[in-house]
Order: sequence, then C-alpha cells, then structure tokens
Amino acid sequence: MSVVVRPARPGDGAAIHAMVLALAISHGHGKDMVARPKDFEAALFNPDPIVGVLIATLDGVPAGCAIWHRSFGTFRGRELMYLEDLSVLPQFQRRGIGQALLRAVARLAVEKGYPSVFWMMMAWNEGARALYQAAGAEIEDGACFCRLHGEALERLAR
Amino acid sequence: MSVVVRPARPGDGAAIHAMVLALAISHGHGKDMVARPKDFEAALFNPDPIVGVLIATLDGVPAGCAIWHRSFGTFRGRELMYLEDLSVLPQFQRRGIGQALLRAVARLAVEKGYPSVFWMMMAWNEGARALYQAAGAEIEDGACFCRLHGEALERLAR
Repeated sequence: MSVVVRPARPGDGAAIHAMVLALAISHGHGKDMVARPKDFEAALFNPDPIVGVLIATLDGVPAGCAIWHRSFGTFRGRELMYLEDLSVLPQFQRRGIGQALLRAVARLAVEKGYPSVFWMMMAWNEGARALYQAAGAEIEDGACFCRLHGEALERLAR
Repeated sequence: MSVVVRPARPGDGAAIHAMVLALAISHGHGKDMVARPKDFEAALFNPDPIVGVLIATLDGVPAGCAIWHRSFGTFRGRELMYLEDLSVLPQFQRRGIGQALLRAVARLAVEKGYPSVFWMMMAWNEGARALYQAAGAEIEDGACFCRLHGEALERLAR
C-alpha cells in the first residue's frame, strides 16, 4: 500500500467534507458540522485563498487530510501557518497517514517560509498527543476554546 | 474618563507592540516576543491584510488593543474571525477597557458578516474568564496549544 500526499484540487470538496465530518463526530461535534462540500471548493479555489488542504491517498483513495490556513503570530509579528484540522478516516487509521500528513505540512511550511506551525489539540486525545510528540511538537496544556456566535454575538454587538 | 475604540492607523505600530509585549509578559512569554513595531505596521497596512487591530484609548492615550485575523472554520465551511490577542496595559486595567474592546470586536464581526468569533484563553486566567463569560462567550476547557518550529520543524520537513 502506498500513501501519497498531494494538494487538494477541484472536485475534492466531497472527500474533504467527509473527512472533516469524521473528525467532528470523533470529537462529539457531529451536529455542529453544517459545512457543505461546495463550501470547501469555494474556500480553496478562488483568486486569493487563505485556506489550503493536503490530501493523503492510500492506493489512490482519499484517506485523510490536513487543512491549514494563514494566521498571524503577534509574538513573532509574522505570518504563521495554522493547522486547523488533521483528519484520517476511521477505516484508514494506524497506517502512518497522520504522520505522512504532518510531515507534508512541515514541508509546505518550510517551502512557504513560515517560521512556525501552530494548532490546537484536545487534552484527552492521547493518540494525537503521541503523534505530535513523536514529530517533535511542543505541547502546552491548560488552554480553553472561547466562542461568541449567534444570539450572544448579536447581543454583545448591540 | 472616556474610552474610545477605533481601528489602528499608520503609526500605531509602537503602541500595539507595547500592548502585545505586556500580554506576553503577563503570560510568562516575554522572552518569546521578537516582533518589532514595524512588523505590525507591515501586517496591517498592505493591500491585502489578513490581520486587523482595534485600539482602545483612554482620554486619547492607547490603553489596550484587540488583534484579530481572518480564519476558517471547517465545521461551518466559512470564514470566521479569530481574536488573537486582547490586551489592556496593566496601568489601565479594571476600567472596562477589555469589555469595550470585546464589544467592538463583536460589532466588527457582525458588520463583516462573520458568523462567529473564536479565541483561546489560558485556563488559569480567571480575570479573562469572568470577562468572556459576562460577554456571553462559550468556553470549553481541556485544550492544548501545539507548535512546531525551528529545528524540529526543519527535521520533520526533511
């Protein structure tokens, strides 16, 4: 079996959608997934995207993806790469696909001149922690996600 | 005393730098702050910035800032607003400046059509937690920051 990692291309929206949905479900957020395949196509294939996707295929079949976007680090005062999602479909896990994707992300960051790649992980995700530690990542526990949306956002904006 | 929140303008780089440095020091990351004032000017004032800054002034003196950047939410499949830093200089804290900045961020998000504002907080930061809860934010504990940079990034990219 051969794992190949390549940039997403037009038509990959449905595969990306399936992989993000699998990730959302594994994190207990399946019901929060309202994105449609065409949303990924629109975000990726426009004249000035801030988002990029790498697709890992196993014998030609999409098996996982890394979704990153441009970000800005204020301590560095420079643009950085933020890894939004690293997803491997359940049936393809434990075959080195996550490692291959993370390596491809690192290569892309170096190629683009980004000094750093950042991402978030849930503390309970021991599989992810092992993968990231083996890759040489620094991990800092004790963070929280904060979010304002819907009625709370509108109320505060009034 | 009157708090006014306005968008950053050319020449604000030094004030922004001072406020990010104060935040870095308060989080034990003073030595990681390598950004220079001109880096903020360059990130903000170019033809296609992904970063924006709101400055809070107290009687005309810069007292705090909110630094946000464009982001992408994969569960929504839409661009979102990521609040990178909310900083109030120590001598101006406890005067409602953080609240005024957060409200201005919410207004800007609604104005720009962003459905959501996301940010991270350290779990130990009880002052920030109280501010964000009062503003109606959802807070999810149990996250970790992950980072690949320097030699580890280059090693993985090889």
